[in-house]
Amino acid sequence: MDGVSHIAVDWGTSSFRLWALDRAGRVLAERRSAQGLATSAVEGFEAVLESHLAALAIPDGVPVMMCGMVGSRAGWVEAAYVDTPASLDRLADKAAHVPSVRRLIRILPGIAQRGTEGADVMRGEETQLLPLVATGFEGLACLPGTHSKWVLVEGGEIRRFATFMTGELFHLLRSTSIVAPAVEAATAVDPRSDAFTRGVRDGLAAPERLGNLLFRLRACWLLEGGGPNETLARLSGLLLGGELAGAARFGASGNVALIASGAAAELYRTALAIAGVDRVMLHDADEFVRAGLHAAALSAFRLERAPA
Amino acid sequence: MDGVSHIAVDWGTSSFRLWALDRAGRVLAERRSAQGLATSAVEGFEAVLESHLAALAIPDGVPVMMCGMVGSRAGWVEAAYVDTPASLDRLADKAAHVPSVRRLIRILPGIAQRGTEGADVMRGEETQLLPLVATGFEGLACLPGTHSKWVLVEGGEIRRFATFMTGELFHLLRSTSIVAPAVEAATAVDPRSDAFTRGVRDGLAAPERLGNLLFRLRACWLLEGGGPNETLARLSGLLLGGELAGAARFGASGNVALIASGAAAELYRTALAIAGVDRVMLHDADEFVRAGLHAAALSAFRLERAPA
Repeated sequence: MDGVSHIAVDWGTSSFRLWALDRAGRVLAERRSAQGLATSAVEGFEAVLESHLAALAIPDGVPVMMCGMVGSRAGWVEAAYVDTPASLDRLADKAAHVPSVRRLIRILPGIAQRGTEGADVMRGEETQLLPLVATGFEGLACLPGTHSKWVLVEGGEIRRFATFMTGELFHLLRSTSIVAPAVEAATAVDPRSDAFTRGVRDGLAAPERLGNLLFRLRACWLLEGGGPNETLARLSGLLLGGELAGAARFGASGNVALIASGAAAELYRTALAIAGVDRVMLHDADEFVRAGLHAAALSAFRLERAPA
Repeated sequence: MDGVSHIAVDWGTSSFRLWALDRAGRVLAERRSAQGLATSAVEGFEAVLESHLAALAIPDGVPVMMCGMVGSRAGWVEAAYVDTPASLDRLADKAAHVPSVRRLIRILPGIAQRGTEGADVMRGEETQLLPLVATGFEGLACLPGTHSKWVLVEGGEIRRFATFMTGELFHLLRSTSIVAPAVEAATAVDPRSDAFTRGVRDGLAAPERLGNLLFRLRACWLLEGGGPNETLARLSGLLLGGELAGAARFGASGNVALIASGAAAELYRTALAIAGVDRVMLHDADEFVRAGLHAAALSAFRLERAPA
């Protein structure tokens, strides 16, 4: 493949995404697969990566910048956490070097918070913050996911952050809890539904009663026979409302940058609006992780930016 | 077996307990098994019950009073919910009649809350409240469990109640969440440990951040390598602290009757003390369910109380 300057890879617990980029960061080719950490540890990380590069006819020598759980202890090579407050423009300097005879391969470090703020970690989300701080943004960034991150960004630094396991709780409650029978026939959460709005409002108003509000989804289904999509939307809304109540305490005022893709973007934007947070700027998470990897590659591999 | 007046059965989702009682409610014999609802639906409810009665040589004609999920839609015979406010001394009158050629069999109804207080249900706990109201108690009753109940009791009635799925969340988080690896080697929660105290305090102080505090158990394990028993105690403490914060809003002031057995009794008593709730009277849950079934049997089967 011609014109490929470098490769960007977002390698998580359950997914692998690769982009072949030119020097301006334009996407020349893309690969996606379900080869997450567990699968790749069995197949071999290098074998997985090189098979995707071979499929795109990427020659030896083209460097690779990666982020995500591939840099964890259970990944390919551990990229030690950078502690908060963490300067984002120095992140690429701290990337782990992956031994390879074919090419330069780097993994960006995750961020750790220690001490009085409370232990917390991220791996992958920090990369999405690189293009955000490049715009001069200051405020709170919200990155929805299995483990949603709320990050206070000031002066180009990650000052502090909090992870909420909202997505994982949603999955657990939906699939294996006593609420599951009430939602097993559900197809999707409609952010424009009354049920979602009601869930968000209830979660915001009484987050300390979440364990009760969740049980009441089942009681409501038993006594009033709520439909599965309606109950699922209330479940999602309750958890998001609870998360926003917690994040408000963390400092959700002023500017909020919402970095999200797909269904999560609309759910969080709607929930934030219900919570009265209206200064929200939405950014696409896929685009931002790619842009972050591109910026880190330019820096780490001493590539010159393409002429404008 | 001589002297048996009636049989008391607490038949739940995952357990079966039977007591042969004399007219004064004294236990003459006891049976326990893991024949919960799913198992019993396959084996046949009558076959399960009669096999335990045969093992104790209980003759035909001895009546049986039951409570618990055996009266749910998925149980033997559905005992329709009694709505709040629910008078407890009339409960036995509303027991469902189970057809049997051998003996009188009754199942006590559960309690439902509808309308503005929010849909909620209980089945089994109402029976434990019968001996409580017989003492003239007024206040809040706490019944820990997979789905803990907080019940406002006034004038011999269940006025309103709230179920918290604390026990189920504990089980889900401990066994299948991202927190699981940090606690899989744990043996038990020590209510006297600093870790449990810290968890309760954190949960009480910031229940709206529960989704974050739970994730931080994992982060703490990754960064600081907390021991499994310590992490499990914090997990338990966080969930209990969160529940108490919610229950406080529900009205946890004044008298609190804690109806619990085994490990839960000590965990909740300790957590309540940490929360500053000191007017707590502890009652044994096993004893109370038996006493409740006994009182209901005396009433439903028109048995005279034994002379004192």
